[in-house]
Amino acid sequence: MELSEDDLIAAIRRMLSGDAPGVVIGPGDDAAVVEPSAASQVLTTDMLLEDVHFERQTISPHDLGAKAIVVNVSDLAAMAASPRYALVSIGLPAGIDAPWVVELYGGMLAACDEYALSLIGGDTNRADRITLAVTVVGEVAPGRAVTRAGAHPGDLIVVTGSLGAAAGGLVLSRQHPSKLGEGLRASWGRPLLGALHRPVARVGEGQTLAQAGATAMMDLSDGLARDLYRLCAESGVGARVDLSRVPVAAALQQAAVPLGVDALELALSGGEDYELLATIDATAFDLARDELGGRFGVTLTDVGVIIDEGYVAVDAEGRASPLEPKGWDHFVAEHT
Amino acid sequence: MELSEDDLIAAIRRMLSGDAPGVVIGPGDDAAVVEPSAASQVLTTDMLLEDVHFERQTISPHDLGAKAIVVNVSDLAAMAASPRYALVSIGLPAGIDAPWVVELYGGMLAACDEYALSLIGGDTNRADRITLAVTVVGEVAPGRAVTRAGAHPGDLIVVTGSLGAAAGGLVLSRQHPSKLGEGLRASWGRPLLGALHRPVARVGEGQTLAQAGATAMMDLSDGLARDLYRLCAESGVGARVDLSRVPVAAALQQAAVPLGVDALELALSGGEDYELLATIDATAFDLARDELGGRFGVTLTDVGVIIDEGYVAVDAEGRASPLEPKGWDHFVAEHT
Repeated sequence: MELSEDDLIAAIRRMLSGDAPGVVIGPGDDAAVVEPSAASQVLTTDMLLEDVHFERQTISPHDLGAKAIVVNVSDLAAMAASPRYALVSIGLPAGIDAPWVVELYGGMLAACDEYALSLIGGDTNRADRITLAVTVVGEVAPGRAVTRAGAHPGDLIVVTGSLGAAAGGLVLSRQHPSKLGEGLRASWGRPLLGALHRPVARVGEGQTLAQAGATAMMDLSDGLARDLYRLCAESGVGARVDLSRVPVAAALQQAAVPLGVDALELALSGGEDYELLATIDATAFDLARDELGGRFGVTLTDVGVIIDEGYVAVDAEGRASPLEPKGWDHFVAEHT
Repeated sequence: MELSEDDLIAAIRRMLSGDAPGVVIGPGDDAAVVEPSAASQVLTTDMLLEDVHFERQTISPHDLGAKAIVVNVSDLAAMAASPRYALVSIGLPAGIDAPWVVELYGGMLAACDEYALSLIGGDTNRADRITLAVTVVGEVAPGRAVTRAGAHPGDLIVVTGSLGAAAGGLVLSRQHPSKLGEGLRASWGRPLLGALHRPVARVGEGQTLAQAGATAMMDLSDGLARDLYRLCAESGVGARVDLSRVPVAAALQQAAVPLGVDALELALSGGEDYELLATIDATAFDLARDELGGRFGVTLTDVGVIIDEGYVAVDAEGRASPLEPKGWDHFVAEHT
């Protein structure tokens, strides 16, 4: 039976609660209505496209739905904001059946639950490829959002967690099935795929970094080398990165030989980490690191320092070379 | 030269003003930040997909950009809200060049200007087909949003403007070039295509209808027959529509014979009118009609009455028959 738009909307609405904090009118009308707030509103939108950002065969609808929410929440985290509401526009090909859609929404709702958002509206359409466009709205106290533009020479460059696991997961997911099976039997395969398919947004960590005095912040979606370059460009500064201090994910280090990849290269340029990149005065770093460890069990690593100009990598022997601002580019990326 | 994501974002940012009322942080950071407001926020999202909602060959990038904004603003109008902010996620195929993208943004910005929105954020991606996902945020005084759920038996069913012109434009745009040329030389061709490509959102009209006492309201995107059915379902009522009173667009009436279409049928089921459908107590109708005419030069027509149950059309001879809730379904619509 062909699903109609009204059938699908009805199925989705049955999954959505109308009663959520702040929601006056939830899904199903022309628009949603939410209560006024004394906080500044923080808004971002991000699209996930089949065969550009994911392949239907290698991610479950539940993980896909959750990821579509999380990558947007990560942008709010990078502003030190608290997520509140989500809206979702979806395009679905004819081959997608109702259970798949229900699982997709299940994943979105699970992520909304985890990050305390309410899914308040959306739009469903027929499309050639699965298309998910999510907008999330959050709140931050007026004047407290952390932008990309505040880094000063002398600030330490810090990153949460470890880098490169999702990029390793992407490499692994594209291997021949026999090689993929080998990875999944090894200790490193599942952590890599988990990082790719089930990213985590650093919401509390972003707020803690802001309170600790982060001068600039962004989330790492396109790789440290490219994203740090963007932060420097917005701040009008340069950077010197100590390559030996880049926190390469442990599973990626184990996978480097069997997968035939350069772990440091993926950690620098692979993308989809969704860790936070921030700059902070050196005197504030220890406290910030201790708070992140104590409250969230998340590491904070200083990987370099902001300089007046130039974009430089220093290796373990102290040799400096230009740091290439390359990484994942959603726009020039070829379809696979 | 292949456009990179950073190149494209830089080109787009040059077109966007950072200084707009209420905007604290505009495009270019992880998320936008806007000032707190004492009003309730009204949020909606709508996606336009190539070959589902439009064909690249038959709409200019300027009109496409404007339409992507206007169809969302229309949803705010239907809640009696005032638009404030827009976010845009875009997917662009490889064959699209920079001037096309600049024209697209020019159209979006022109529409934002016309309806007093600020374009505060977005996301650009490579895609197979042109994909535009727009979210707009507006404001309404707390408690003053008009939903689909408030219609009462005895309320008049009213519509702004005239219906069916956009559906006629869609029929015309799909004709053989010789037939299309004939239409464009006739008096009715350009108004039909204009209605399809350059819809108007009834923002002031929505607020006026709300002040006049509209009990329920929605915008007509999928055709009167289907959308009124949805309004009745939300309100738990029925409707009796007087077919002889349906305001069929004049250009569509002229086009009916040359195009070989049933004008009333298109006016009932064609979709993309973006007029407002509302219900209102009979005692308030005259004032509402006079206000709309006086302030906006827009007609308001009573096309029927809300009844306890049933969904009925009455023809000019007074014969009643079931009204089919059919119309444009974005979900089951086949690609062309």
